[in-house]
Amino acid sequence: MKNYAWAFIAFILLFAQPESVFAQVSGKKIIDLTYSFDKETIYWPTENGFQLTVGFKGETEKGYHYEANTFCAAEHGGTHFDAPAHFYKNRATVDQIPLDKLIGEAVVVDIVQACSANADYLISKEDILRWESKNGQLKPGTIVLLRTGYGKFWPDRTKYMGTDKKGSDGVKMLHFPGLSPLTADWLIKERKIKAVGIDTPSIDFGQSSTYETHIILTKEEVPIFENVANLDLLPDKDFNIVALPMKIGGGSGAPLRIIALLDQ
Amino acid sequence: MKNYAWAFIAFILLFAQPESVFAQVSGKKIIDLTYSFDKETIYWPTENGFQLTVGFKGETEKGYHYEANTFCAAEHGGTHFDAPAHFYKNRATVDQIPLDKLIGEAVVVDIVQACSANADYLISKEDILRWESKNGQLKPGTIVLLRTGYGKFWPDRTKYMGTDKKGSDGVKMLHFPGLSPLTADWLIKERKIKAVGIDTPSIDFGQSSTYETHIILTKEEVPIFENVANLDLLPDKDFNIVALPMKIGGGSGAPLRIIALLDQ
Repeated sequence: MKNYAWAFIAFILLFAQPESVFAQVSGKKIIDLTYSFDKETIYWPTENGFQLTVGFKGETEKGYHYEANTFCAAEHGGTHFDAPAHFYKNRATVDQIPLDKLIGEAVVVDIVQACSANADYLISKEDILRWESKNGQLKPGTIVLLRTGYGKFWPDRTKYMGTDKKGSDGVKMLHFPGLSPLTADWLIKERKIKAVGIDTPSIDFGQSSTYETHIILTKEEVPIFENVANLDLLPDKDFNIVALPMKIGGGSGAPLRIIALLDQ
Repeated sequence: MKNYAWAFIAFILLFAQPESVFAQVSGKKIIDLTYSFDKETIYWPTENGFQLTVGFKGETEKGYHYEANTFCAAEHGGTHFDAPAHFYKNRATVDQIPLDKLIGEAVVVDIVQACSANADYLISKEDILRWESKNGQLKPGTIVLLRTGYGKFWPDRTKYMGTDKKGSDGVKMLHFPGLSPLTADWLIKERKIKAVGIDTPSIDFGQSSTYETHIILTKEEVPIFENVANLDLLPDKDFNIVALPMKIGGGSGAPLRIIALLDQ
């Protein structure tokens, strides 16, 4: 196929996203990295899904339209934030995390090839070094987003997390890539990263039962973003992240609205 | 008292805020304009409050600390976003609102004096013109935050909204200032504002029963931010707002995390 035909297809794919994925403000392009919370939203096998209850929707007696709902959710489901308190004692809850830890320069490390070959892949230091060999050493204070490619499976539970079984039986059948504990430790100590995000349900891989990567990150109060959407739309570097969790008092985590800001 | 003593007191007051209110990133000062969601959080008299249920908190069998919760809430309570769908048929829900409508240059219009004298005060065009006489005409696309001063009453329901009664009886007893419908219309047509926020429970004043200001704003898809915190910490102008609601699919509103970014 001719190059211009590919370009046309790329253009269509890029701009056929739902309206709210892209926006533009003050010379910046905004990309929404958040999945909607609805019936499809993926939660951990042991949690109920997102539940919306319609309070009222329609015309009121006075003649105006009105709608309002209530909802119930687990802190840790859909696109969400893990506060340090989630896996470490006496660490910051959602409302206590300083906002500068959730905002700043970010990069995307692409590990799609290895992850598509192995659903239990552990992202290694070598994967980060490969990114660095192309883009230069990670700067201290960088927000690192890990692109496993699993976003393309959302919201198919079986493809995205290895199983659609619920409960503790489901947990044992989880398969998806994650960040290895050693790499997490190295990213903190040797690269002084600010936060880390991933396009899977958990920063620990699906088959983890000890959650060591969570423990290492939360001990050092490194924010974790999980089920991050649309990582395929981001470049390797040179963009900013604003990640704002719902401010749940004493929360161990929360629904997260996370966006990328790119220069045009 | 000497000037330096006043300066010292101002310094203490400014920096004695909870840790998470202030932060700093890339030469910008960040101010959190969001109340925490907890037992104290103020909801409309007809809604239940925010309910957090502890799922687990403590040491697991495997020896690591773990905590996770679930929660239930109304869309419209605490610091929250009113989507256009809230008061107008066939308008954008939370997940559909383009993000550029929630991000950008903002101003604070101070109406504290009039509002402290009259709990049923309706913010008028003259109040906006007074701001303009000092600061210049509002630029198209500005996010307008209305400072009534009622933030100082949070979370005392009686002082903040006139009553702590629940149910429809409580609604009749609501007293707090709001934006007049005529001024909302003028702000849209003559000033082309992008969004509007207020430090009270509703953009319509407490005694409204027809919610005309909501209807005018939602018809034109102007986002509304309610129960915005810490407006007393903001200058008249020259700062930016990032307002990111929880992305509730089909939501008429949602918990909102809203921050201001100021040049240092």
